[in-house]
Amino acid sequence: MRYEELSIEGRNAVLEAFRAGKTIDKLYVLKGCQDGPVNSILREARKQDTVVSFVTKERLDQMSETGKHQGVIASAAAYEYADVEDILRLAEERGEAPFLILLDNIEDPHNLGAIIRTANLAGAHGVIIPKRRAAGLTATVAKASAGALNYTPVAKVTNLGKTMEELKERGIWFVCADMRGTVMYDVDLKGPIGLVIGSEGEGVGRLIREKCDLTASIPMKGDIDSLNASVAAGVLAYEIVRQRMC
Amino acid sequence: MRYEELSIEGRNAVLEAFRAGKTIDKLYVLKGCQDGPVNSILREARKQDTVVSFVTKERLDQMSETGKHQGVIASAAAYEYADVEDILRLAEERGEAPFLILLDNIEDPHNLGAIIRTANLAGAHGVIIPKRRAAGLTATVAKASAGALNYTPVAKVTNLGKTMEELKERGIWFVCADMRGTVMYDVDLKGPIGLVIGSEGEGVGRLIREKCDLTASIPMKGDIDSLNASVAAGVLAYEIVRQRMC
Repeated sequence: MRYEELSIEGRNAVLEAFRAGKTIDKLYVLKGCQDGPVNSILREARKQDTVVSFVTKERLDQMSETGKHQGVIASAAAYEYADVEDILRLAEERGEAPFLILLDNIEDPHNLGAIIRTANLAGAHGVIIPKRRAAGLTATVAKASAGALNYTPVAKVTNLGKTMEELKERGIWFVCADMRGTVMYDVDLKGPIGLVIGSEGEGVGRLIREKCDLTASIPMKGDIDSLNASVAAGVLAYEIVRQRMC
Repeated sequence: MRYEELSIEGRNAVLEAFRAGKTIDKLYVLKGCQDGPVNSILREARKQDTVVSFVTKERLDQMSETGKHQGVIASAAAYEYADVEDILRLAEERGEAPFLILLDNIEDPHNLGAIIRTANLAGAHGVIIPKRRAAGLTATVAKASAGALNYTPVAKVTNLGKTMEELKERGIWFVCADMRGTVMYDVDLKGPIGLVIGSEGEGVGRLIREKCDLTASIPMKGDIDSLNASVAAGVLAYEIVRQRMC
C-alpha cells in the first residue's frame, strides 16, 4: 500500500505534474502573484477544474517541506482516482447491477476511509465524491480504509448532480439517506442503485436530494439526532446487501 | 454536557475520591512507593477493583497538571457509570425485551463513542464494557457519542464473562459477531438479547465467544478482512432493530 502524502512544490514541478495528468486535489498559490509561469499553472488548474486557494507567503512557508515553493504548492492524491466508467465496468465484469456510494460533503478523512472500507465489504462497485467540500485520498483516508483503497475505485467528479443525471440515463436509481424518508426496509433497493450519503450536520444537500428518486430513512428510536456518517452508510449499504440476497 | 477529563492528584485527594465512591478508571502510583498513605489508597483501589499501574517519577511528572502529585494520580470517569441493573430497569420501564450491547477489547475512544451513539439510536437499553482493555468514559468518548452518553447508560464490569452468566440466568441470550457464524439475516434476534462486539484486530475473545448462545456474521463480499468496529456494531444493531420491527 502507498501511504505517502504527496506535496509538490515549485513552479516547474507543479506545471509538470499537471501536464503529466496527475490528479491535484488542491493548488495553493501566493496571493497577488500573476507572472507568466504562475498564469500557465493557473490555466492548467482551470482546465482540470482543480480547487485553487490563494494564500499568504507565511502560509506557504509553513506548508513547504523543501523551503523552495516559489509561490506554488500542489497537494496531490496519494492514490489514483478512478473514472465513473471504471466503476460501471467493474459492475459489468462481475455481472451485477451497479451499486455505487455517493458522498455529499463528507469532509472528515476518517469517515471517508471507513466508508470506502464498508463499500468494499458490502460489494459496492465504487465510491463517487465531489471535487469541492470533500476529503481527498490522503494517507489518513488510506489508513482508515484498512486497505480497501487498493481494491475499491473512488472517482472524483466536478459536479455531483450532473454525474447523477448522466447515471440516471444509464438506468441507475438514486436513493438518499434522509430522516424524513420512508423506513429503509420498505424501500425497494434491489436494482442498479446509487446510495447518497450526506454530512452528519447537514445531511444531503437540497439540490442533490431533489435529484434522488427515493428517500430512505434509518429508524431512529433514541434521544439524539443522527448516527455517525460512516455508521449510517454501513447500515444503509447492508440493507441493500440484504435485499439483494433475498 | 460535561466534557471535562478528570485527573485527581495527590494522596489526600485520591483517597477522598475513592472514599466518596467516585469511579476511578485508572490509578497511577509511583513505582516502589510503599508508605502508609499509599498503601491505604492501594487498599481502596483493590476493594473497587480499579486498574493500577506502577510508573516512574518521570511519567507521573509528565501526566501531572498541578506538579504536586505526591506519587499518585487517579484518572476518573468524566461521566458516571451505570449499573447493569439500571440498564435492565430501563428496558422494563419501556416495556421492551432487553437489548444490550457488550464490548470486548474496544480500546479506541472514537469507536466506543460511536457505538454508544448507535446504541442510543437503535433503541438499545445500555452498553456494558469490561474494566480491563477498554476505553473509559473520557471527554473524547463523550464527544464521539454526540450527546448519547447523556441518555444511554454505560456499565463497567469486572468480569464480562461472569456478567454474561448472570444475565443468562435472567433470560438474556447472547449473540456474538463472528465471521464464521451464520449469516445474521438467518439468526433469530428478536428476544431479550446481548450483542457482543469485539475489537477489529482480534474479534471477540475465545472465552467470551464460548459463552455466547448464537454467532452471527455480516456477509462480506470484499477483498479486505473486516469492517470498522463501530460500523460492524451499527450493522448488527440495526439487524436486531429490523427483526424486532417485523
